Amino acid sequence: MTSAPSVESVNYQPPSWAAIVAAHARISARIHRTPVLTSASLDALAGARLFFKCENLQKTGSFKIRGASNAIFSLSNEEAARGIVTQSSGNHGAAVACAAAWRSVPAYIVMPRNAPKVKIQAIEAYGGKITFCEPKVSSRKESCDCVQAETGAVLVHPYDDDRIIAGQATAAKELLEDAGDLDAVFAPVSGGGLLSGTCLGAKGIRADTRVFGCEPERADDAYRSLTTGTLQSLESSDTIADGLRASLAPRTFAILRRHVDRILLVSEEEIISAARLVWERMKIIIEPSSAVAIAPLLKPGVVASLNLPKRADGGAPKLGVIFSGGNVDLSSLPWN
Amino acid sequence: MTSAPSVESVNYQPPSWAAIVAAHARISARIHRTPVLTSASLDALAGARLFFKCENLQKTGSFKIRGASNAIFSLSNEEAARGIVTQSSGNHGAAVACAAAWRSVPAYIVMPRNAPKVKIQAIEAYGGKITFCEPKVSSRKESCDCVQAETGAVLVHPYDDDRIIAGQATAAKELLEDAGDLDAVFAPVSGGGLLSGTCLGAKGIRADTRVFGCEPERADDAYRSLTTGTLQSLESSDTIADGLRASLAPRTFAILRRHVDRILLVSEEEIISAARLVWERMKIIIEPSSAVAIAPLLKPGVVASLNLPKRADGGAPKLGVIFSGGNVDLSSLPWN
Repeated sequence: MTSAPSVESVNYQPPSWAAIVAAHARISARIHRTPVLTSASLDALAGARLFFKCENLQKTGSFKIRGASNAIFSLSNEEAARGIVTQSSGNHGAAVACAAAWRSVPAYIVMPRNAPKVKIQAIEAYGGKITFCEPKVSSRKESCDCVQAETGAVLVHPYDDDRIIAGQATAAKELLEDAGDLDAVFAPVSGGGLLSGTCLGAKGIRADTRVFGCEPERADDAYRSLTTGTLQSLESSDTIADGLRASLAPRTFAILRRHVDRILLVSEEEIISAARLVWERMKIIIEPSSAVAIAPLLKPGVVASLNLPKRADGGAPKLGVIFSGGNVDLSSLPWN
Repeated sequence: MTSAPSVESVNYQPPSWAAIVAAHARISARIHRTPVLTSASLDALAGARLFFKCENLQKTGSFKIRGASNAIFSLSNEEAARGIVTQSSGNHGAAVACAAAWRSVPAYIVMPRNAPKVKIQAIEAYGGKITFCEPKVSSRKESCDCVQAETGAVLVHPYDDDRIIAGQATAAKELLEDAGDLDAVFAPVSGGGLLSGTCLGAKGIRADTRVFGCEPERADDAYRSLTTGTLQSLESSDTIADGLRASLAPRTFAILRRHVDRILLVSEEEIISAARLVWERMKIIIEPSSAVAIAPLLKPGVVASLNLPKRADGGAPKLGVIFSGGNVDLSSLPWN
């Protein structure tokens, strides 16, 4: 990704609140203001009042359209006309293809050979041109560089990009605007675009809101990066949460070090069982990556262990959960 | 159902607008105001602007909690204390069990032996006491009479009851309040409680809104009743839309004769393929009975054939679709 300027964590200035407000104004007529749903039975299991921001019901089936449309509609006409190139395990690719189609410019998508078929089809349906690569971070980068060199297209990195982070921040902004004084927000973490944006969006509305990242044990680079204080990589991963197989980048690592309270890890079994529970109780389709954000809250004792401050209203904690996407292959469900 | 007073269609006065407003005030703090979702890709398939009222995301997983809670919270303390009895293929039973639990009174539920396991479990989870009967209208009635005689409980019929119809009307009332000037609303029809309520609720907000009932070919009693002008029965049915196996009753027949424009029939294949399309594109779980309401709109030429008046804004027709419920067994999906 040679065109992304390198970032010195220590000097990096994350997107400002004004940039997030501008992003929201730029994209809000194009995307859904997704509903914030509640569930009495999940509240009872978690011992908390849960507010689910349903980005699985977002256009293209995930939050990724927020960042992609903000980035693509930020470009000048001259830049946009060269086309857009990116690499993605699926949802970012679909979002770039969709937003590029809205702007009537070509989208070149590099994606790993093992991406789910349903995500490949979605990109094709939006008119994206796909180049397959090996499912390794290094191969993705090389293929992306190569396509960029051939086409002259503008790179829109899936997360190491301020326009993307500002766009993703609008999900938490809406959640806090709609659900009020949340004590904490939980979001999945992969490359960290959503989680970085969640920090900025939530704390921009209510500074005291805590933010927790949720990550599969089998793809625990964010946990290791924040624990060791050094950016860790993840050369490959086989977690069922196929949207969470990327690693943090300089920008997202810098934001998370400053703003994230803790990373919570979950097992593959916990991911699958949380996904099924949400399908059954809430009647919405979430992909395994979304289930990662609720799975920790369903484990006995976890909510109490977060040491959230007592609420002035004396009630159970009010917790926001971001369901990141809903793109699954309905002919092969994890529990059948 | 001996306690339901018989109704002479010609003299019957359906619930007034004031009764519907009162029902809404009685139940709105207890239930979800369900979201109205849209989908650009389904709009393109239908050639219309579609507004989906998601009662699949309602408490108990269906609209039935609207009528059940209105009926049960309309009772005096003395009546309620005797308990509630009803018969139901599932969703009404769960709703009665849930609303009775909210009011801390017993619920006795008569349901057919072939009801889906997931619906039986839901009733048990709400503390309802189940009596199984044969899957025939006559057996349901006999078993219900029998339980009522034994317990002295108050009968809350699933649809031949003005309190139920007024409660179900609140779904269309909310839909029109939220989605504005809809040209028509589509709802599934079984016993006709939802469809009757949809007529009253939609036309109460906007008198010119047309209302269409949607029904499986394999359970076409409403179609035959409205075509012949005589109440037709349906002794048994094997449609996959397990919520639509009941027949119209005197009250609902009277309302539908006056207010419904037409009944649209759909095949089993059309129901299954519409359900899968909604799961895939909208990322929500609807049961087959819900899919019956969108299935006609996905058939080429159907929207044009409805002869809706041209809109003043010159745009495509604005159509409301009521997704009635989302209770399915996730371990046996119809397409796997």
